[in-house]
Amino acid sequence: MEKQQALKILSDLIAIPSINDQEAQVADYIAQLFADYPAQVQRVRYAPGRDNLVVTIGEKGPLLGFSGHEDVVAVDSNKDWDYPPFSATIKDGKLYGRGASDMKSGLAAMIVAMLDLLNNGQPLAGRIRLLASVGEETGEYGAAQLTQAGYASDLQGLVIGEPTDLQVRVTHKGVIDYKLESLGKSVHSSQPDLGKNAILPLIEFVHQAQIVLAADNQVDSTLGKLTHVISQIQGGSQINTVPAHAWLTGNIRTIPAYSNELVMQQLDKIVQQLNASGAQLKITYSYPEPPLPTQAHTRLAQLASHVLQEQFHLSGNLTAGVGATDASEYHQVQNLPIIIVGPADGTTDHQPNEYVTVAKYLRGCQFYQALAQAFWQEF
Amino acid sequence: MEKQQALKILSDLIAIPSINDQEAQVADYIAQLFADYPAQVQRVRYAPGRDNLVVTIGEKGPLLGFSGHEDVVAVDSNKDWDYPPFSATIKDGKLYGRGASDMKSGLAAMIVAMLDLLNNGQPLAGRIRLLASVGEETGEYGAAQLTQAGYASDLQGLVIGEPTDLQVRVTHKGVIDYKLESLGKSVHSSQPDLGKNAILPLIEFVHQAQIVLAADNQVDSTLGKLTHVISQIQGGSQINTVPAHAWLTGNIRTIPAYSNELVMQQLDKIVQQLNASGAQLKITYSYPEPPLPTQAHTRLAQLASHVLQEQFHLSGNLTAGVGATDASEYHQVQNLPIIIVGPADGTTDHQPNEYVTVAKYLRGCQFYQALAQAFWQEF
Repeated sequence: MEKQQALKILSDLIAIPSINDQEAQVADYIAQLFADYPAQVQRVRYAPGRDNLVVTIGEKGPLLGFSGHEDVVAVDSNKDWDYPPFSATIKDGKLYGRGASDMKSGLAAMIVAMLDLLNNGQPLAGRIRLLASVGEETGEYGAAQLTQAGYASDLQGLVIGEPTDLQVRVTHKGVIDYKLESLGKSVHSSQPDLGKNAILPLIEFVHQAQIVLAADNQVDSTLGKLTHVISQIQGGSQINTVPAHAWLTGNIRTIPAYSNELVMQQLDKIVQQLNASGAQLKITYSYPEPPLPTQAHTRLAQLASHVLQEQFHLSGNLTAGVGATDASEYHQVQNLPIIIVGPADGTTDHQPNEYVTVAKYLRGCQFYQALAQAFWQEF
Repeated sequence: MEKQQALKILSDLIAIPSINDQEAQVADYIAQLFADYPAQVQRVRYAPGRDNLVVTIGEKGPLLGFSGHEDVVAVDSNKDWDYPPFSATIKDGKLYGRGASDMKSGLAAMIVAMLDLLNNGQPLAGRIRLLASVGEETGEYGAAQLTQAGYASDLQGLVIGEPTDLQVRVTHKGVIDYKLESLGKSVHSSQPDLGKNAILPLIEFVHQAQIVLAADNQVDSTLGKLTHVISQIQGGSQINTVPAHAWLTGNIRTIPAYSNELVMQQLDKIVQQLNASGAQLKITYSYPEPPLPTQAHTRLAQLASHVLQEQFHLSGNLTAGVGATDASEYHQVQNLPIIIVGPADGTTDHQPNEYVTVAKYLRGCQFYQALAQAFWQEF
């Protein structure tokens, strides 16, 4: 494919403002790219306007999965951007726009690789299935839906195109988001004994949670330690009133040594004990995602590393990440090797002036094609 | 004065929505009530639209002060009220409206008493000075201004008309409002070690302040213990970001055993220690008001108690309160006896359907008149 055409596909994807929603427009766009080819295109609706898309090419042979998410995170303020976030701008070898790094460049490069394979005139030596998911940024529920519906069950390997600067990410932390709500009883602050302060049990919870989770202190050789961030807190309405309602949110990044279930049990226990002493706390978890245990030993990881070294003269390093990806969901498929390799370097994810280097993007297109061919040969 | 006329003055005052502002309208209204009498009327401007008013009647003899604040607190939602908050409604012997209890009934009853004394055809045996203040609900700064300007310096006694159900309140707690702000550094929650969480120093501050202030555990025989309420807390903007900014507010009610200065030093020390270990905290105090030490031994308190018992067949009990009043400011005048006596019972202060009993209000008008006459005779 011509360089300009490959860049147009990425630019077209960036022009769709699929901010935690509207992924159906991305799915429509990808579907029409494959309309004139022998490809099996399946829409998997998550919600109105929110379609996952599954595109399978090839008739027989080893089945490699390509995974990319269709959604992007919001733009805080256009004023922080030097370029319009939803109209790709190329300047000094960089392509700017929301999703340029995370991860419409990975998604586009996978699409370009598939179209190039279809266009090169020879029958395919294997199969590729593109899994384009909704809602990765807000809980990986698109990947969960595709996993449960079986679209990953027959894969023999899966590559996720999140930004890794074309290194091979073989493991990442899990994530637990939680919200803790506290109920009290409001009275005038001059007579606090007649009321119940909703903020204080939150303070006590944080104090205890910091101690309990600090004891989960094993250090994973590649992922490091479990981390816990109290990210938001809010309570009370005026200075001379005992607050009747308060809440906080927390974000935990887990490692394989401590299962998400264990960590949630530890928090639940603190809540239960505080409630037993008079607090009225309720903790809820949204989309806990398990860590991805290391895939370093898999043939897929070794193969990707080899292709990067031999054909692209890159390091082929096996690396670790901190952020959860759709891999947390697809990993539920038994014995499915998963690696994360994407063209962007990830330094501007979720930030203003997000970009991907044009050269890296185009190399990503070539890499995915080369990896598929090597996979078909080796597996 | 006719009962209907006394009720009209209270109703007119309630009809002025002087919510933490616009006290000049109250001052104008009171001033015109005294326009046709030999009275010295002085406006003391705090800010545009916010006038304290000082009305002095009588030529010579003992000078008794009457103190009432012109402001009222806000109405959260009209829907919570069975009657319109800014239009007095009399039903089943109760007069409803914002300020009916706290404290336009006290203020109105003092005005009625002064007008009745002026109207009864005899020369006054002493003097009364009404101090109508702005901003009592938000920091007693009107009373502070009047004190600094000398309007209380020549008083021989001062009665504050806050609701006490016609008992004699002789002491109350002080108050310290503070705000604690915390600065951190925002980063993605997957790599918290690269940032600085602004919420955690607040948690640590609360934890330590609870311990330190719990040691201030002397029990005042009438006021009870010092109390400390964390009333508001807020920080962070999204669940997957380390928060860069957070703040909380606290409300402390002090007793004479622990000066406001001491308590503020205790909090300052915690802040300094946390800042020395890397926090970026700033604590600010707004309008700290000292407690009113007991006035039980004063001739004024004894006289008021005697008048209530002998002339009104009420208990004449000397009581303690929890809330700070303008007395915290006027108490800066050396050797000025201050008592708090008002007609309403205070049970609905700052609440929907605030009311004063009509009978109690009218008795309040008579009490202030009787107290002034007794004061003039005894002092």
